[in-house]
Amino acid sequence: MDNQSLSLEELTRAVGGKLDVTEGGSSNEAVVTGAAPIDSAGPGDVSFVADARNLKSLASTRATAVILRERDLFEETDRGGTTLIYVDNPHLAMAKVLEAIRPTVHPEPGVAAGARLHETAVIGKKVSIGVGAVIEEDAQIGDRAVIYPGVYIGRNVEIGEESVIYPNVTVMERCTLGARVIIHSGTVIGSDGFGYAKEAEQYYKIPQTGTVRIADDVEIGACVTVDRAMLGETVIGRGTKIDNLVQVAHNVVVGEDTVIVAQVGIAGSSAVGSRVQLGGQVGIVGHVRVGDDILIGARGVVTNNLTRPGAYSGFPAINHGDWLRAQTISQKLPELRKKVRELERKIIELEKSLDQ
Amino acid sequence: MDNQSLSLEELTRAVGGKLDVTEGGSSNEAVVTGAAPIDSAGPGDVSFVADARNLKSLASTRATAVILRERDLFEETDRGGTTLIYVDNPHLAMAKVLEAIRPTVHPEPGVAAGARLHETAVIGKKVSIGVGAVIEEDAQIGDRAVIYPGVYIGRNVEIGEESVIYPNVTVMERCTLGARVIIHSGTVIGSDGFGYAKEAEQYYKIPQTGTVRIADDVEIGACVTVDRAMLGETVIGRGTKIDNLVQVAHNVVVGEDTVIVAQVGIAGSSAVGSRVQLGGQVGIVGHVRVGDDILIGARGVVTNNLTRPGAYSGFPAINHGDWLRAQTISQKLPELRKKVRELERKIIELEKSLDQ
Amino acid sequence: MDNQSLSLEELTRAVGGKLDVTEGGSSNEAVVTGAAPIDSAGPGDVSFVADARNLKSLASTRATAVILRERDLFEETDRGGTTLIYVDNPHLAMAKVLEAIRPTVHPEPGVAAGARLHETAVIGKKVSIGVGAVIEEDAQIGDRAVIYPGVYIGRNVEIGEESVIYPNVTVMERCTLGARVIIHSGTVIGSDGFGYAKEAEQYYKIPQTGTVRIADDVEIGACVTVDRAMLGETVIGRGTKIDNLVQVAHNVVVGEDTVIVAQVGIAGSSAVGSRVQLGGQVGIVGHVRVGDDILIGARGVVTNNLTRPGAYSGFPAINHGDWLRAQTISQKLPELRKKVRELERKIIELEKSLDQ
Repeated sequence: MDNQSLSLEELTRAVGGKLDVTEGGSSNEAVVTGAAPIDSAGPGDVSFVADARNLKSLASTRATAVILRERDLFEETDRGGTTLIYVDNPHLAMAKVLEAIRPTVHPEPGVAAGARLHETAVIGKKVSIGVGAVIEEDAQIGDRAVIYPGVYIGRNVEIGEESVIYPNVTVMERCTLGARVIIHSGTVIGSDGFGYAKEAEQYYKIPQTGTVRIADDVEIGACVTVDRAMLGETVIGRGTKIDNLVQVAHNVVVGEDTVIVAQVGIAGSSAVGSRVQLGGQVGIVGHVRVGDDILIGARGVVTNNLTRPGAYSGFPAINHGDWLRAQTISQKLPELRKKVRELERKIIELEKSLDQ
Repeated sequence: MDNQSLSLEELTRAVGGKLDVTEGGSSNEAVVTGAAPIDSAGPGDVSFVADARNLKSLASTRATAVILRERDLFEETDRGGTTLIYVDNPHLAMAKVLEAIRPTVHPEPGVAAGARLHETAVIGKKVSIGVGAVIEEDAQIGDRAVIYPGVYIGRNVEIGEESVIYPNVTVMERCTLGARVIIHSGTVIGSDGFGYAKEAEQYYKIPQTGTVRIADDVEIGACVTVDRAMLGETVIGRGTKIDNLVQVAHNVVVGEDTVIVAQVGIAGSSAVGSRVQLGGQVGIVGHVRVGDDILIGARGVVTNNLTRPGAYSGFPAINHGDWLRAQTISQKLPELRKKVRELERKIIELEKSLDQ
Repeated sequence: MDNQSLSLEELTRAVGGKLDVTEGGSSNEAVVTGAAPIDSAGPGDVSFVADARNLKSLASTRATAVILRERDLFEETDRGGTTLIYVDNPHLAMAKVLEAIRPTVHPEPGVAAGARLHETAVIGKKVSIGVGAVIEEDAQIGDRAVIYPGVYIGRNVEIGEESVIYPNVTVMERCTLGARVIIHSGTVIGSDGFGYAKEAEQYYKIPQTGTVRIADDVEIGACVTVDRAMLGETVIGRGTKIDNLVQVAHNVVVGEDTVIVAQVGIAGSSAVGSRVQLGGQVGIVGHVRVGDDILIGARGVVTNNLTRPGAYSGFPAINHGDWLRAQTISQKLPELRKKVRELERKIIELEKSLDQ
């Protein structure tokens, strides 16, 4: 549970960086045991500057070392007495520092006494299955996967190797998860899609006979819902990251390396491309396509196909710049209306003048 | 787990249709084992055309049979060599086909060894209760109901016959569910309503002493929250269908055969009528009434009583057509403002001319 | 489970009120066993009038007694034959009445046979731990806390005394909850924050090494997600109340006595002050500050720091009154555009007249 200790030399190696020990600063043998924002860091902490505007904090930080881009430093930058570690990508370096200093600790491999595994379930090597977890008939759990307590894994589900399923997640029958997938607590994969046939005034349930396929390296937040397809598959592509409380309806297909922020809703049969970013609380109506490399600003609503890469916002989502201009005026409508009324009065006066 | 095989004759009977075997097409003894969209269907699949615009796919489909409305066919329609099954309601027929081909498989009746039933709980006939499910004091589970693993059923809860409660659902004390109710995973029925008395600057919890009543044939999606009433009942009427991640606050009353799409929020004490449709991410403020046969477009916000049947959108929700017109202009406000500025300049010129 | 019986005298003492027995009305020995809205209350019920506009119901109510402010009564008010109980704060009195009439019943203290406690977990006095609950290594549960079935309490978590954790809640490692905290079902505390370093086109997970700290007297609704900090803490301040399906991202800090209505989303590293009210479905973007004593109307989006106390609405959130005026016009844009077109025509006519 405790943080690990690393010398600055070890740390520099872990991040693939270049160590610049300043006179009077920490030596390459100095040890860090924590990480902290630059203004609150103390001795024993490593910190980082990803945004050059924060370089001024270098002069006063108490961090043992600071990670930053060498090219962000200028002749005149006051680096105080801080030892620096140069990297190309400070965010990535910070990720690796945190991995090294505080490695994620999952439960030890082994099947807890209180877990319920169907006799036909296929459990890989070094898998951890917690108490109260249920693994149904013919389910397969890949090597080194971690299934936390209270998880439900339905019939014929496949969980890829090194995937981590946090407590109280539900994965319904026949859904498949790739390798290194992370699913946070409370999330539901493979609930029925929302589909009914109307019969007179009433709704008749259309069986949702498809599945959900989640590719490798996907991470899904807490209390997310991904519905199974009516026919075929609902798909989340490789490397895509989904935040909390997101709704992915039946037959939605999401591409690779896409980022979906909290509380987004994607309606049935829509397709979202690769390297897309959907801001918080965005909505995408059913049966539309959002192409690759598109950004939808927070709270936007996509009501039509969007194919050209770029940033979009608003309801319906339009070019982000256009939306911004319209939005600005829309909040000044009382002024615009006042102006129109003034013009009206002036015109009446002009008309009178002319009549005379 | 595998799909069932049905002859076209059996299938036609299951959907109450009329079989039209074409020369060279599949015979009435041909067997289908799957269902698929018309463009991706292969031999052994049945498909369907609900929208006459898709009839053109008939000529090239490889489906063994296609279900459609006879009246959608025209003299000139190229039906290829496909055997057709005529029905009045293709969506409904598809639902019945899927039921026949891939019947939903729930766990066998029986109480799992790891389920925890209070000794006073009343369990009907042929009930299935999964491992890790908890049934508290005086709860009643109707005949043929299915309680999946990890479900919590509180004290004095009643679950009607043939209801299905998916894994990790919570139903708190005294709530009642009718017959054939389906509740998907992660959903919470009967959490406390959000009610506080203000005492100086602080909030004092008002006990939420009421319950939730869910009528027959209701389906509720995953990660939905339905709060118990402060006094009395929160009610979901017969046949109403609720999608994922919806919030139903305390003392809300929803009518019958209403459809509530994902991420809708209905605030406290509001009433929603029968045959209403609430689009995705709609909000309804507290203490308002939405009458019968009303549609609220996606993302709309209802801030006042709506009584006249029809479609509404926007914030506040107004007549859908009016909203659409306003919305269109609102995204062209920069043009409108430019026009106003032009007019202003012209008026100044006119005034000058007159002064001369 | 049944309601308690209280005499009007006992009830009056419980709410710290003043009993006014009217001739022919219920005596101070009359007994109430229920509470109900004034128009549906019957004999044996106590009711209340918090809003003076509802005083007219006094004349016809069948309630045994009605709680209200003495100063709301006027000479001419027809109080019927109802016995009245005067208090300063009817809402608060109602809360106390409901507590007395229907005290919340939690499971008895004791650790259920089916609960799984790590041997190093520290369990206080009179704690109740339900079947299927999991308490991991070094977790601490305060005196008289109630942990319902299916709850997961991670390593080194601290739960304060008298806290109530409802079924199927997940609290991940190292998070701390104060005293008298209530967490409703399905909620997840301490899931990973949504943080990635971009490496070429792909996302590399930034370990979320911080925690969540929830102070005393906080109540959190159902299916809420509160992510752990990347570094440091995500904080919910004392007395703050959070409704269902709310997203609180990593490193968010919420002050004291703040109210957050359902489906609000607060993005990473933002700060929300004390005595703030966030209406339903509000969004707060990342890295902004909402000061003390600020109200954000339902569906508003905060995109910049707000410091001056007051009410704000809209996207971006502006002064509520200004927003209301703009909103009103925005729905009448077709009229405004029509007016502009009329003015345009008139100007053209004027120009012609002048040309002649």
